[in-house]
Amino acid sequence: MKALVYHGPGRKAWEDVPTAAVVADTDAVVRVDVTTICGTDLHILSGDVPAVTDGRILGHEAVGTVESVGSAVRRVAVGDRVLVSCVTSCGSCLFCRQARFGQCLGGGGWILGNTIDGTQAEYVRVPFADNSTYPVPAGVSDEELLMLADILPTGYEVGAVNGRVQPGDVVAVVGSGPVGLSAILCAGLFSPSLIVAIDQADGRLEGAKRFGADVTVNNSREDPVAAVMGLTDGLGVDVAIEAVGVPATFELAAQLIRPGGHVANIGVHGHPAMLHLESLWSRDVTITTGLVDTFSTPTLMKLLRSHHLDVAPFVTHRFDLDDIDQAYDVFARAAETGALKVVLARH
Amino acid sequence: MKALVYHGPGRKAWEDVPTAAVVADTDAVVRVDVTTICGTDLHILSGDVPAVTDGRILGHEAVGTVESVGSAVRRVAVGDRVLVSCVTSCGSCLFCRQARFGQCLGGGGWILGNTIDGTQAEYVRVPFADNSTYPVPAGVSDEELLMLADILPTGYEVGAVNGRVQPGDVVAVVGSGPVGLSAILCAGLFSPSLIVAIDQADGRLEGAKRFGADVTVNNSREDPVAAVMGLTDGLGVDVAIEAVGVPATFELAAQLIRPGGHVANIGVHGHPAMLHLESLWSRDVTITTGLVDTFSTPTLMKLLRSHHLDVAPFVTHRFDLDDIDQAYDVFARAAETGALKVVLARH
Amino acid sequence: MKALVYHGPGRKAWEDVPTAAVVADTDAVVRVDVTTICGTDLHILSGDVPAVTDGRILGHEAVGTVESVGSAVRRVAVGDRVLVSCVTSCGSCLFCRQARFGQCLGGGGWILGNTIDGTQAEYVRVPFADNSTYPVPAGVSDEELLMLADILPTGYEVGAVNGRVQPGDVVAVVGSGPVGLSAILCAGLFSPSLIVAIDQADGRLEGAKRFGADVTVNNSREDPVAAVMGLTDGLGVDVAIEAVGVPATFELAAQLIRPGGHVANIGVHGHPAMLHLESLWSRDVTITTGLVDTFSTPTLMKLLRSHHLDVAPFVTHRFDLDDIDQAYDVFARAAETGALKVVLARH
Amino acid sequence: MKALVYHGPGRKAWEDVPTAAVVADTDAVVRVDVTTICGTDLHILSGDVPAVTDGRILGHEAVGTVESVGSAVRRVAVGDRVLVSCVTSCGSCLFCRQARFGQCLGGGGWILGNTIDGTQAEYVRVPFADNSTYPVPAGVSDEELLMLADILPTGYEVGAVNGRVQPGDVVAVVGSGPVGLSAILCAGLFSPSLIVAIDQADGRLEGAKRFGADVTVNNSREDPVAAVMGLTDGLGVDVAIEAVGVPATFELAAQLIRPGGHVANIGVHGHPAMLHLESLWSRDVTITTGLVDTFSTPTLMKLLRSHHLDVAPFVTHRFDLDDIDQAYDVFARAAETGALKVVLARH
Repeated sequence: MKALVYHGPGRKAWEDVPTAAVVADTDAVVRVDVTTICGTDLHILSGDVPAVTDGRILGHEAVGTVESVGSAVRRVAVGDRVLVSCVTSCGSCLFCRQARFGQCLGGGGWILGNTIDGTQAEYVRVPFADNSTYPVPAGVSDEELLMLADILPTGYEVGAVNGRVQPGDVVAVVGSGPVGLSAILCAGLFSPSLIVAIDQADGRLEGAKRFGADVTVNNSREDPVAAVMGLTDGLGVDVAIEAVGVPATFELAAQLIRPGGHVANIGVHGHPAMLHLESLWSRDVTITTGLVDTFSTPTLMKLLRSHHLDVAPFVTHRFDLDDIDQAYDVFARAAETGALKVVLARH
Repeated sequence: MKALVYHGPGRKAWEDVPTAAVVADTDAVVRVDVTTICGTDLHILSGDVPAVTDGRILGHEAVGTVESVGSAVRRVAVGDRVLVSCVTSCGSCLFCRQARFGQCLGGGGWILGNTIDGTQAEYVRVPFADNSTYPVPAGVSDEELLMLADILPTGYEVGAVNGRVQPGDVVAVVGSGPVGLSAILCAGLFSPSLIVAIDQADGRLEGAKRFGADVTVNNSREDPVAAVMGLTDGLGVDVAIEAVGVPATFELAAQLIRPGGHVANIGVHGHPAMLHLESLWSRDVTITTGLVDTFSTPTLMKLLRSHHLDVAPFVTHRFDLDDIDQAYDVFARAAETGALKVVLARH
Repeated sequence: MKALVYHGPGRKAWEDVPTAAVVADTDAVVRVDVTTICGTDLHILSGDVPAVTDGRILGHEAVGTVESVGSAVRRVAVGDRVLVSCVTSCGSCLFCRQARFGQCLGGGGWILGNTIDGTQAEYVRVPFADNSTYPVPAGVSDEELLMLADILPTGYEVGAVNGRVQPGDVVAVVGSGPVGLSAILCAGLFSPSLIVAIDQADGRLEGAKRFGADVTVNNSREDPVAAVMGLTDGLGVDVAIEAVGVPATFELAAQLIRPGGHVANIGVHGHPAMLHLESLWSRDVTITTGLVDTFSTPTLMKLLRSHHLDVAPFVTHRFDLDDIDQAYDVFARAAETGALKVVLARH
Repeated sequence: MKALVYHGPGRKAWEDVPTAAVVADTDAVVRVDVTTICGTDLHILSGDVPAVTDGRILGHEAVGTVESVGSAVRRVAVGDRVLVSCVTSCGSCLFCRQARFGQCLGGGGWILGNTIDGTQAEYVRVPFADNSTYPVPAGVSDEELLMLADILPTGYEVGAVNGRVQPGDVVAVVGSGPVGLSAILCAGLFSPSLIVAIDQADGRLEGAKRFGADVTVNNSREDPVAAVMGLTDGLGVDVAIEAVGVPATFELAAQLIRPGGHVANIGVHGHPAMLHLESLWSRDVTITTGLVDTFSTPTLMKLLRSHHLDVAPFVTHRFDLDDIDQAYDVFARAAETGALKVVLARH
């Protein structure tokens, strides 16, 4: 089969590899119908994720058709159309039994396109298929559903739920890339009175408005702390969501928060940030971090089906799977191309 | 009356000042029967709390007898014996109506011995007396009750409750001063399976055992991370409570935590700490800070009365109120004297 | 002044009474600009609320202008325009300090138009004015704000919050009177995937659609259990809200619930209901009851101001305050008149 | 093998049956080393549980040794010593993925000794072995661990956790049979200030004291409502736990509760109870029901190992497995024999 193979920092190739096959009895092999590229894939390509080694097939998001299953797979059958989630879970370990699937100790967690071969291929082997795939519901397109492989549950769980967004809240979201936009969209499910999007690119801030931001602040031009304090009688926001992954944006999020508020970090960080305990110690602040658990996937599917969640605007570009190199190029130059999610379909 | 007056960094005096009197109609004036000294008072004396200015009477903990009340005081009468809590609350502002009294926007919060005159005096004016004093319950000594003016609700709310200690948890408490010991005692109310106390002084660690620590680690001699990982199969603790207030101890607490665990900061910090988001971002960690709200004071009183909370061991030294200078000296040299709480009684 | 005075079952009169005046130092007297009639007022008139005795002025909802205040009132001044909430709270008792204002032990709770004179008058005395009134926010009409005196916080707190409505949930609301409609509107703030309204009157079910119901079931014609099971793959709803107050509707709500679901009772009941523990004991069901606490009033005001809550359709009829008898008549014949809330304005 | 087989109401026999064998690839067959009898087994024998049909082997609690495993079992190996829990879970269905294992939709839940053959036998087939057994921890006896097969997690989850027992609470437990005593023991883990045990037998109330009750009320002689109101200043208890399973005891629990309190039903009911909504509607009461999920089994094991939970006093009688008829007799006459849990050991 064809697959996108990582060959060390800066090098990848769409090349022939042995076709994915069932290894463990809980595996399914899924024919990839649509897949997409994540910001994390770019991090991997730049060499920032040492767990990913030469020869690894990238990608952790797909919708496809079950091609074969191991003998212990009970809930998925050949021919089923399924969402392949970025998080795989054994279902039996200490953390899986607490619905903390992203921290699976039994061989799951985020492994696809990381410690095992991923979804940017014609076929993908999905371990623990019973706990790691979801039947495609009626009335939902593959493209829409693909948005639930990673960015939607991440924005929902690690952003809105960890941040405990409540009706009437003022919510600031720092960063308007795909995950930040997903956090904006998901925060909106809880009816905040105001969502403030903060980013340095006007183009992304336009996008933020489309996903539900009420106010946008370009912090390359405007002091975001002053802007937010002006909107909140000097108190600060109820919830600040960090969706970039650099120290400055985390520190900004922590500056925006009101006493008793919640800072929810979504960003993937490579460096430590300063935590200003000299002012925060007395302010009753809660700070959370998290890897997505995908516990919310069934919830988000219901919201998709009932038209409470409009994910269509995430898809900005479409390619044939064979043109994945071009897709990476468009996605990597998002600032110019306006790319949010690029969908790769197999024909 | 006599009072301990702050006169700038390093300077204080037990001197004659005008006797405290009712100013606002919600005030009570309380004759101080017992008071004590807090670590924060030492911080103030070293000049670290700029809000405290020359001429301020120190102290924010007392048990006493109501001497006079303003016309709007309804729940407290002259002659009542009361606990004076470190936190004063207006009862009507946005935060008070959410039981977040420490963040009172209506003129309360931690003000005694800070922005208004405090309890290290023969009399003290207590604003919002209805919401800031508690009747002395039967069967509880003044000394015991005095422990509920600050350290017990702090250990309970900002330590055990913010840290969400659950039965069976492994809890690490960094720092075994009075507040750390209170956190140990209060964590014990939730039946953790193991409490690990970490400190650099063997004397304090001995105290930690008396308050419920199962294991002690002297981190001047032993690597506390290795010790804790050894006790938890390499996973880390469920709850880590910081009770010192310097960057190193906060960073240690964050290193000890398991995926999904809670770091509860109690310490009063003067400097920022490093937050190692490069490892924490994916670990589902919750970090909290907080000023005590004293919402738990009625609960702690019930536990005192029912003998579920033994606070007597906190009181290591007793002085006459007139000997407050000597008491400060003993308290300041706690490493040598073994002082935890020194009780000053008026005779 | 003129006021609507209760004179025993079935008897009321719009008559001259002494003008309301400040009695306690925490009182405010408010000139009533708009008031309204609640279903509870009809219960009182039919003699079902024995606490209400001959001579009592009815009504517990108003927006008005502060006419005078007691000496201890700090947050409200003469001339201020305020919402008078159905719940009054002392701010200092055990329950008020837990934000459970409806259970106030200090002389508050639901007392207006119940144990003290109420708002269906030219003036009303409001005890504990600091904790029982809210400044009229800019950009909100008196009529809209009046909806926040009782029905909106009731639907929000006792319905949606007690029922723990979550995104994606299926919610059934039994009863489409003003409080049931408010529960529908407030449940919608949490983005359920489906709201099912159940009532016996087609007219009210039409209203339910306007407030956000996705599906309506007329249970005078259709089996609501079969209908709901058909919509939920036989599992039942996540949340069932009872908003009528008779045994049959409570028992219906309990029949609709899925394992692990929440039944939130809002209805004011006069008789016991059967609790079918022989089937419910093993189903992990949570049942809640509650009197509104009005802790959500500031939240609902923010949502009104930010146009996330459209309460205008509640107001179906308008009268001059002097025509209150006619207003009662229209409201009492809601089945014919289609009345939801009738607004009485003083001119 | 020998097994205790149900043959219709009132009839059972310790007889030869085919030895348990692996059927599904996720099964384990466990040699039963110790098992016990539950009150539910008596209910089954009296014909009250129609799901149990002629030929069924009874029992749902055991500690044993793994004899054989299906090909898909990953976490359990032949020779492992394990706790067999009363609840079996598929690990993959909607409810298992929410840690609500007792409601498993994938073929688990309470099935042992109910819809499939159980543990009162020389061998038992355990479905979904990875999710339904727990390795025997070091330092814990089989007898002690056996108490965690059902009564301890039931008292903990359905009693103490559902009732949200908090430090300082006053807790009433109605019924002092094995499950009521377990609720008393588990409530104690949260440091209530007072536990009141209510029962009609002095012998059982003596037992209640041994497990942590502070006060006992014999409601065959004394009015329990008056007694409880006398202990709580007329307010009622924070938490009332029902552990009998008849209408009168549920109705009593609901009468004891304070405004804002929690009624946790544990009892297995055969008949509906009256819910006095005419007084409860306004009292902010939460009522819960539940089947045990066994999510707490790892927690309870840690507490056993750390000596925070003393379950030894539950074991009042010991028999050889072959003498199971005699054990049933002693257990059924608990009022005379004082039996709590009878342990049947295979030699």
